[in-house]
Amino acid sequence: MAVNDVMIRNHVQLTGTGEKLVVLAHGFGGNQTSWWRQVEALSPYYKILLFDHVGHGRSDWSAYSPRRYATLRGYATDLLEVLSAAKAERVYYVGHSMSAMIGLLAAIDQPERFEKLIFFGASPRYMDEEHYKGGFNAEAADATYDAMSTNYHAWAAGYAGAMMATPDRPHLAMEFAETLSSIRPDIAQPIIRMILESDHREDLPRLRVPTLIVQSTGDLVVPMSVGEYMAKKIPCAEYLAIEASGHFPHASAPEATSQAIRSFFG
Amino acid sequence: MAVNDVMIRNHVQLTGTGEKLVVLAHGFGGNQTSWWRQVEALSPYYKILLFDHVGHGRSDWSAYSPRRYATLRGYATDLLEVLSAAKAERVYYVGHSMSAMIGLLAAIDQPERFEKLIFFGASPRYMDEEHYKGGFNAEAADATYDAMSTNYHAWAAGYAGAMMATPDRPHLAMEFAETLSSIRPDIAQPIIRMILESDHREDLPRLRVPTLIVQSTGDLVVPMSVGEYMAKKIPCAEYLAIEASGHFPHASAPEATSQAIRSFFG
Repeated sequence: MAVNDVMIRNHVQLTGTGEKLVVLAHGFGGNQTSWWRQVEALSPYYKILLFDHVGHGRSDWSAYSPRRYATLRGYATDLLEVLSAAKAERVYYVGHSMSAMIGLLAAIDQPERFEKLIFFGASPRYMDEEHYKGGFNAEAADATYDAMSTNYHAWAAGYAGAMMATPDRPHLAMEFAETLSSIRPDIAQPIIRMILESDHREDLPRLRVPTLIVQSTGDLVVPMSVGEYMAKKIPCAEYLAIEASGHFPHASAPEATSQAIRSFFG
Repeated sequence: MAVNDVMIRNHVQLTGTGEKLVVLAHGFGGNQTSWWRQVEALSPYYKILLFDHVGHGRSDWSAYSPRRYATLRGYATDLLEVLSAAKAERVYYVGHSMSAMIGLLAAIDQPERFEKLIFFGASPRYMDEEHYKGGFNAEAADATYDAMSTNYHAWAAGYAGAMMATPDRPHLAMEFAETLSSIRPDIAQPIIRMILESDHREDLPRLRVPTLIVQSTGDLVVPMSVGEYMAKKIPCAEYLAIEASGHFPHASAPEATSQAIRSFFG
């Protein structure tokens, strides 16, 4: 794919001043604007690469294909294409939620491209299994698909509130509801289904890049035990629990998030 | 006020079969339909009185007056009028959220009317104070009023999600968003302001009716310490912590809620 096409497809943007290149990769329902607090805090110290996953934000939505994005590997391929198009070598990668496993897959494939990784709100498996508590079960998944089909915007608004878990700061849920609501329902539903069906537990031990797992204490989607599980399975992993409401520490606890990034990336 | 006027003002309804009369009083943003799971579970055992607080559900909204409802005492007066109009003596009262303090005030005023009380998601003071963690501060309150004025429905949807805290059961947040959204914004805002400004800590020791305080472990509005505080300050209080997501155990943990009611009321 031509460099320019990739840059447009993923609406790639560069900002910040510094030597090290930090890639901020958003999760499901967000887009690159979800990182604005970190961009503000980190841009004096790093060059920052931002992009939108296909189906999100200002990406080229016509590039969405249920086949290419039938698994997170499609998004990992996109990420590698973005890094290659941007001539980004030895990057410092921050992945939130689905972008954690996307970064993991990309870094297993091309470890030389990645200096360090940080995962926020990461999960290799959202569904419960025998001896593994992912947090969702088949009933919960079906209820989610149902609610999304019945009234996507009502679902999105309520989901945003639950994800953010900050009734004392209502604008945070409204901010996420906006990016989430802007996704076309017919794209959002297969993406969330793909995420909930994903299982990358077997990939964890294959990662060779130093990784920091950041787990929020108040995450309603990813149980505390999942963060600990990942830290155990990834060979070069460090683990950090931060006091933060909800699944979006970069919004609910922006200082702690930026601090974690600066202290791990240096 | 004439009996019939009170019954209409608060859309009073009676259901269930049994000797004991259980009153189910909804919280802010809900209405009598919020109790449908308990009505289903309890109606074989109790007579049940349901009503809508003025400004909510199918109450007479023209009865809303900022002066009468400048404090929770206005709602406590309504409750006593409802019980008197319904000829309800020695009732078993269940109050959720703001209806807990409404029940407390009514039961301090006319203790002979109340046999027992149960409070779910109760708080005598939502704002933080020196040596008291209510969960909200001035900034949070202002952010709430701002969000309500800017876009009431967006606020309501996100707030419902955060209150319910059940991303695995999205219909619960959507259910609450619906009753919350149906309130006129110009009525909802002064009511929530009145609730957040209320302070009934000094009233707690004046209650003489046996009371069960039920605290949800996952309540994002009422910290665990508030439930414990109430149980300490109310002379005849028992305390029960139940495993439940969010501020609405009657929706998120309906069996545990109905079980708590049956076992305390007998």
